[in-house]
Amino acid sequence: MKNFVEPIERLINEFSKLPGVGTKTAGRFAYSIINRTDTEVREFAKALTDAKTKVRYCNICGNFTDKETCSVCVARDHSIICVVAEPKDVLALEKVRSYNGSYHVLHGVLSPLDGKGADDIRLKELLARLNGGKTQEIVLATPTNVEGEATAMYIAKLIKPLGIKVTRIAQGISLGTELEYADEVTLTRALSDRREI
Amino acid sequence: MKNFVEPIERLINEFSKLPGVGTKTAGRFAYSIINRTDTEVREFAKALTDAKTKVRYCNICGNFTDKETCSVCVARDHSIICVVAEPKDVLALEKVRSYNGSYHVLHGVLSPLDGKGADDIRLKELLARLNGGKTQEIVLATPTNVEGEATAMYIAKLIKPLGIKVTRIAQGISLGTELEYADEVTLTRALSDRREI
Repeated sequence: MKNFVEPIERLINEFSKLPGVGTKTAGRFAYSIINRTDTEVREFAKALTDAKTKVRYCNICGNFTDKETCSVCVARDHSIICVVAEPKDVLALEKVRSYNGSYHVLHGVLSPLDGKGADDIRLKELLARLNGGKTQEIVLATPTNVEGEATAMYIAKLIKPLGIKVTRIAQGISLGTELEYADEVTLTRALSDRREI
Repeated sequence: MKNFVEPIERLINEFSKLPGVGTKTAGRFAYSIINRTDTEVREFAKALTDAKTKVRYCNICGNFTDKETCSVCVARDHSIICVVAEPKDVLALEKVRSYNGSYHVLHGVLSPLDGKGADDIRLKELLARLNGGKTQEIVLATPTNVEGEATAMYIAKLIKPLGIKVTRIAQGISLGTELEYADEVTLTRALSDRREI
């Protein structure tokens, strides 16, 4: 945009790097910043750098934490471990409050096309956790897409020989979805995994 | 949200203060920040504080600038002044490249219900600009809502007695709008302001 003020232009550029934000939205964000007080803007800037510098991976599960070991790992039962791809998946599962075990965050899935192999996700760390012999079940909650499925299968093959129960989260029709709108794979899965009531 | 890391929580809170951003979007923003490099995050934080500390009002038109006088005021003809409510309006008008005069940013409109009177918008500054006697036309481009109209009428009444031509941007049917969907006020305006072709 022409005739624009350099510091504002730079801020708009930064905002437009956020996921799903175009220049128009970034512009609205930038103008809203200029209308705030100095203190408010400084706090925002500090929150940004703090989130980057103070947050690290939990030394057990790999989830984000600002301590050595995250609060979930400290509080929970480690005999059951739920394996997820990303930290936000832990958040989604924690919100429903129906799981009381611990987690393991892979920080990615196997994706040969993107050059992501077994060494690029936190698989070694998962296997190391199983050495103590206390783990009874691994719940695979990687995404239900092709890469997520392949990653789940790969992990299952690694862990089953250790004599640990390996499960996969159920797939089927979502609540409220009309049968006619469900995709074929989901529908096939919903039928094959049907249960007696 | 429970079990959440304080620095991330704080950043999500900051992002959710942006216009139109809810906690879910703010969460996606925050996670995207943690996945960036230290340098990138520092640059973002610096862009924030710079936009706040380096940007001020142009001493002539009141638009945002990082200099004493903005680039538009330096380059343009001041015999015609377009009066707008907000800096973003200047941007919108500049994008169409069909106006070559200067601007005056009021930073608000008259709004008795919000306690905004003539002293709360940059009206004195506008009148001071007219003292030189070189101004030939004032184009009122305040919003086309009730407050914007009232502000335009108020300014017209102040300036007309000075012998300066006062105009208002045209109102009518937008390009591509079907007549049946145009609101009544716009339609009435489009009829009364019809022109010969």
